[in-house]
Amino acid sequence: MTDTAPAELDALLDAAVAAAAVLRDRPLTERAAWLRAAAEALDADAEALLPLAEEESHLPRPRLTGELARTTFQLRLFADEVETGAFLDAVIDHADPDWGMGPRPDLRRMLVPLGPVAVWAASNFPFAFSVAGGDTASALAAGCPVLLVAHPGHPRLSERTARVLRDALTAAGAPDGVFALVEGQDAGRTLIQDPRVTAGAFTGSLRGGRALFDLAAGREAPIPFYGELGSTNPAVVTRGAAGARAAEIAEGFAGSMSLGVGQFCTKPGVLLVPAGSEVPALVAERLGAMAGAPMLNGRIRDGYGQALEALAAHEVVEVLAGSVDPDADPAPTLLRTSAAEVVADPRPLTAEVFGPAALVVEYADDAELLDAVRAFEGQLTATVHGEPDEQVVPALLDTLSERAGRVLWGGWPTGVTVSYAQQHGGPYPATTAVGTTSVGTAAMERFLRPVAYQGLPDALLPPPLRDGNPWAVPQRIDGTRP
Amino acid sequence: MTDTAPAELDALLDAAVAAAAVLRDRPLTERAAWLRAAAEALDADAEALLPLAEEESHLPRPRLTGELARTTFQLRLFADEVETGAFLDAVIDHADPDWGMGPRPDLRRMLVPLGPVAVWAASNFPFAFSVAGGDTASALAAGCPVLLVAHPGHPRLSERTARVLRDALTAAGAPDGVFALVEGQDAGRTLIQDPRVTAGAFTGSLRGGRALFDLAAGREAPIPFYGELGSTNPAVVTRGAAGARAAEIAEGFAGSMSLGVGQFCTKPGVLLVPAGSEVPALVAERLGAMAGAPMLNGRIRDGYGQALEALAAHEVVEVLAGSVDPDADPAPTLLRTSAAEVVADPRPLTAEVFGPAALVVEYADDAELLDAVRAFEGQLTATVHGEPDEQVVPALLDTLSERAGRVLWGGWPTGVTVSYAQQHGGPYPATTAVGTTSVGTAAMERFLRPVAYQGLPDALLPPPLRDGNPWAVPQRIDGTRP
Repeated sequence: MTDTAPAELDALLDAAVAAAAVLRDRPLTERAAWLRAAAEALDADAEALLPLAEEESHLPRPRLTGELARTTFQLRLFADEVETGAFLDAVIDHADPDWGMGPRPDLRRMLVPLGPVAVWAASNFPFAFSVAGGDTASALAAGCPVLLVAHPGHPRLSERTARVLRDALTAAGAPDGVFALVEGQDAGRTLIQDPRVTAGAFTGSLRGGRALFDLAAGREAPIPFYGELGSTNPAVVTRGAAGARAAEIAEGFAGSMSLGVGQFCTKPGVLLVPAGSEVPALVAERLGAMAGAPMLNGRIRDGYGQALEALAAHEVVEVLAGSVDPDADPAPTLLRTSAAEVVADPRPLTAEVFGPAALVVEYADDAELLDAVRAFEGQLTATVHGEPDEQVVPALLDTLSERAGRVLWGGWPTGVTVSYAQQHGGPYPATTAVGTTSVGTAAMERFLRPVAYQGLPDALLPPPLRDGNPWAVPQRIDGTRP
Repeated sequence: MTDTAPAELDALLDAAVAAAAVLRDRPLTERAAWLRAAAEALDADAEALLPLAEEESHLPRPRLTGELARTTFQLRLFADEVETGAFLDAVIDHADPDWGMGPRPDLRRMLVPLGPVAVWAASNFPFAFSVAGGDTASALAAGCPVLLVAHPGHPRLSERTARVLRDALTAAGAPDGVFALVEGQDAGRTLIQDPRVTAGAFTGSLRGGRALFDLAAGREAPIPFYGELGSTNPAVVTRGAAGARAAEIAEGFAGSMSLGVGQFCTKPGVLLVPAGSEVPALVAERLGAMAGAPMLNGRIRDGYGQALEALAAHEVVEVLAGSVDPDADPAPTLLRTSAAEVVADPRPLTAEVFGPAALVVEYADDAELLDAVRAFEGQLTATVHGEPDEQVVPALLDTLSERAGRVLWGGWPTGVTVSYAQQHGGPYPATTAVGTTSVGTAAMERFLRPVAYQGLPDALLPPPLRDGNPWAVPQRIDGTRP
């Protein structure tokens, strides 16, 4: 991978600005067709893309096959969503001489694309959160050109995916400059500070994401930065659930926390269980039977080793299963502490450990459970295994929904479906933009901004705001929703 | 005005946190009733509020009467909007074993209130952008308690408005802590950095707003900061319009730029006219007949004097009408430069001057006009007076809509209606949050965040997401919009 040179980056940015003006004005049906063409081209290139992904990510073929299918499904779902035009949020207020605060002019509002967007690829989803992943798909769907900062963990896959994507988009009629691959950390830092870039989207580490957020916020003209930085994803087992189905819960948890070598931002990293429950021993038993597996790359392996070592060395933590050996492929590892210790000093015990490790937190009673849950910072997900009529449940769900973007009742947080109701986000440090999601159709909203037009003749209005509604988009008219 | 002491502020924050938990769960009909009760109480207290406002702001009674009407209309409009429940954006995806990327769990998403919000009052709208103004109304409508930082320009009015508002809210059944007045700059800085505060909203100067934005972004856990900081609001007169109705345009512009002693964030501060047009002379003639008037307070007067003096002293600027005398009540003042100078060095010529001054910018041809327009930073508004069939119009509207939140065809930007389609925002420095508005029903969106619930039994779901839809809110179900 060769770092993108400054002059080349400058040319890519100019091309993106030119493309933005074209994207803004072309019909939604064309934009949808570009996305579908991209999905088809990626599916058609699967036999070349999958071996590259396998080689560079060390992830097994079936997982990668499924991930590519998810990625192209996502492009097609956004295409469908684009065609409805509902995301434009078109609102028409006709002039009204009797409006309650005084005469109202004709005023029409819709969302328009922000402009060129910088997207950082993640290492742990070489398809779904990388070159042609969710951030790229949602930005293109919103009508924004994308400058994609490749992840150095899968350089050849990135280059091939970018070529397939860009060629498919332009062959389908999208303007040159609609998509470009950028390589190198320096190029990324240049991008987020360039006046031509209107937003950033990132999935990765707290440290890397916060550094980029700080650059975006520190610009002379700050821009939105949508960072998905990390999450511990606490899972709670109530006393009732622990008594009713300990084995089932233990099996589910062991599978979820070890899936993909624990390299998911939604990995359940903490399991809160009632003291005296058999769940921890059952989890430890299952994990003990699992072999180690290679991680995505050496840097992630080193980071995992250090974080795990620090947690295991904490005086209130004991190791129940697995290994903290920094030289072996990591085996799923279970540690244990108490809720009282979490309440006393939450930070070191609730921080994300990216990899196949989880911490069991034993609580004495429901009050201690709630106190421990309140000690958590912002989360992507929070899970409850409980019985619907247990007294603690409403307070538990309220407390978790204050802290997490997605709250699960039963099941496990790994596996994030792409749909209309998905929410992949949460208060900091889960993300840097609490009001947004990076998965699901609502992810488009991040790359749009409202513009109101006052008193324009019909012919000068953008088509979605015209009285004849030539694009047949939903329009809220004089307060009445479609 | 006594600065709020740290211990008192701490207690107010705790009360706001307690109130947030109550607000979140109470039915929307109750929240709407609180807002209506507040509107009624403010209207009922008009005879006490208006003289205070007149005395402290130096604004004339008719303007203040209208502004109070706007303020209570706004509270009632938000009440209506709350009751529809549409702002919750409820989305239900039922479990689907045949979902394109693999089986989909039951997933339901809605927007929930962020929590306690800090709002800074503005000086120039002692009702509509102050204690009970748009930020307060939209935050309460969204279900967020408000800590309102009073503007020192109208302390007694602030205290009385706050008392009326708080008493009305709690008498109507809202929890204690739903609203509190905070006084003093230090208290404001403490608020924006307090972990209990979940967002900030501000209308005021670029310097003050940027300082608060930097504090919000620099927190260990950054929060959204919605700052409305300033705008020059360029207005363009095309060659066609200048030829067709110079007198009408000159009269409209002179009225708009001098309205309220030029103390509006939407004051048109630059008028771009074709070289040789009679418009500037006609404007100067009208302004020459207007008397000086006192500004809101000494600090604003000083700031205006300095900004105007700097602009008038610029070697490419000449004074056409008015006065730069720093000791007199400011009279409407008109200055002139050329588009070529604006393109050559935009910053000093396009910066906001808060007060009754405006700069005429003469352009040679349409290409120079477009170049000059491209030299502007983010704007709240941009206005065009043109003929629909002029060749320059489409490019002009496109260029302006890339830079402004509201684009007007004819008319003038002062006078911002509160409605469904209103957009009061724009790229930096108009605001610090390009995707949002601080006026109109969409202003509520700033204080909400999405939460998805996966696999919850119906009885444990928030009412807006239940199958029976007990609150009768619009629900998007399995992709089908209501």
